[in-house]
Amino acid sequence: MNPLTVEYINLARERIAAHVHKTPLLTSSSIDSGLDGEVFFKCENFQKVGAFKARGACNALLSRQIEEIARGVVTHSSGNAAQGLAYAAQVCGVPAYIVMPKTTTAVKVEATKGYGASVTFCEPTLASREEVSRQLQLETGAVFVHPYNDYDVMAGQGTVALEILEQVDGLDAVLCPIGGGGLISGISTVIKSLSPNTEVIGVEPEGAAEALLSLQRGEITAVEGPKSIAEGLLSTVGTRCFPVIQQNVDRIVTVSDGEIRGAMRTLFERMKLVVEASGAATFAALEAQKVSLKGKRVAVVLSGGNTNFLGGE
Amino acid sequence: MNPLTVEYINLARERIAAHVHKTPLLTSSSIDSGLDGEVFFKCENFQKVGAFKARGACNALLSRQIEEIARGVVTHSSGNAAQGLAYAAQVCGVPAYIVMPKTTTAVKVEATKGYGASVTFCEPTLASREEVSRQLQLETGAVFVHPYNDYDVMAGQGTVALEILEQVDGLDAVLCPIGGGGLISGISTVIKSLSPNTEVIGVEPEGAAEALLSLQRGEITAVEGPKSIAEGLLSTVGTRCFPVIQQNVDRIVTVSDGEIRGAMRTLFERMKLVVEASGAATFAALEAQKVSLKGKRVAVVLSGGNTNFLGGE
Repeated sequence: MNPLTVEYINLARERIAAHVHKTPLLTSSSIDSGLDGEVFFKCENFQKVGAFKARGACNALLSRQIEEIARGVVTHSSGNAAQGLAYAAQVCGVPAYIVMPKTTTAVKVEATKGYGASVTFCEPTLASREEVSRQLQLETGAVFVHPYNDYDVMAGQGTVALEILEQVDGLDAVLCPIGGGGLISGISTVIKSLSPNTEVIGVEPEGAAEALLSLQRGEITAVEGPKSIAEGLLSTVGTRCFPVIQQNVDRIVTVSDGEIRGAMRTLFERMKLVVEASGAATFAALEAQKVSLKGKRVAVVLSGGNTNFLGGE
Repeated sequence: MNPLTVEYINLARERIAAHVHKTPLLTSSSIDSGLDGEVFFKCENFQKVGAFKARGACNALLSRQIEEIARGVVTHSSGNAAQGLAYAAQVCGVPAYIVMPKTTTAVKVEATKGYGASVTFCEPTLASREEVSRQLQLETGAVFVHPYNDYDVMAGQGTVALEILEQVDGLDAVLCPIGGGGLISGISTVIKSLSPNTEVIGVEPEGAAEALLSLQRGEITAVEGPKSIAEGLLSTVGTRCFPVIQQNVDRIVTVSDGEIRGAMRTLFERMKLVVEASGAATFAALEAQKVSLKGKRVAVVLSGGNTNFLGGE
């Protein structure tokens, strides 16, 4: 039974309030006049660890009894979920064991270690990730925390929408990226409860449109060899997330890698914001007219900012 | 006689309030714990046109009689001052004529034209810039507006400090970049009047430390062939700015181009902020320990964010 309600998400918000940022909702008059509408950018790139993942991970740990996680927590991730769980474990004062594919870039490994986590490498396959994670649980007594298919994680991510609704009125739509579906599950639950006339639109890369395919088929369907520069959006939708998406998400649109790059560039040049590819996909959908902004007020979730520095003069 | 007082700068603030942003003052707990102090980042990269120049230019035009500028305004600049004046002219509904060296990058030319300005090219020498500007004034009847050596421009830039003092208490120091000296003239006037115990520290590139040399010699002294990636900080200090700097600025420190690049990178990776080289020089002074942050509360002005997009995954 799905416990994900606005009340449940409000509790998550109280629980994590001291440990995560209420992120700003920024606007740009030049972008608005170019697209002939109003865009509100929810800046989760400014969140702790540089992405919304800090919210869900903190709620997942803070909602458990400390005895349950005293021997530590485990997850496998090469991305923001690793840093999110490492940060949350640091907040709770418990060990974090992160399983990362040995192909993970050094900077991500260092960032995760920077939050005090212990990193164990595995082969870059799901089977190896799961096997090494199980091994670590057995050895350490640590508890596995899923990066998205977990109601407490979903509730933590949903706090993004509670903030958006406090920060702006009369939204016609909210655009949210879909990877495993944790973020959009939480966000869509809040929006459909508190602002039912606001459309919830999911955004996926063309090369990894698993949620769209799954909705069309009525069952979770993996795409073979998903591929996109938006590495955070390659996961298959979670079994707990899928029914929430079926119920709450109005539609899903897809964007190409080129459109995502263009959006990253506009956010950099016009808004002076560093946004990673997965985080810029929502704005790409507006900029590439996959969703018309004309005369509308639309919030886009910029879900994270962890991208390589290639700047210079 | 120098009219630059806090009252004068307060008037500027009222005048430009509807046309410029009150920019946020951001913090980063990871940067603070690394440097063992508290840094407050004044984000003028989020300002209209992407730099503080919008403030001074708007005040310079709005403080004049509309009859005086009805036939337009002229300046010469290859950088943010061009966009600032173009924007201010658009606000006032008067023509802007911008003289740019023919070596200016296309993106800067386009950005300036994007605010409705007419761009005229000149040779990349001060003599040619001035000659073409004079010619344009004669032809059009437009008024010349200096990018920094103008009390109304200086007053507009000083509004940055009025905001900082509203946004944070008990500052030990404010770090401000020095190019022609317009920004630090306005900022130091406000700080020394309203918070006299706060140190005002100027920051210059090692390869263009004209203000430092001028202070040491007691007269404005140009550096031959100033050179730095911080293109906005290569100008010689203005005759109206210099006495203000002599009176109000406690000290000047210099930073290398490598230190500036390092600061840009930290701001990108940790804070997800796009800051141009000239804008990152202040933080470079902290990060490179030219100014110790230990146990202190220091505001740094991130003066602009107009740098080339070289991002990607």
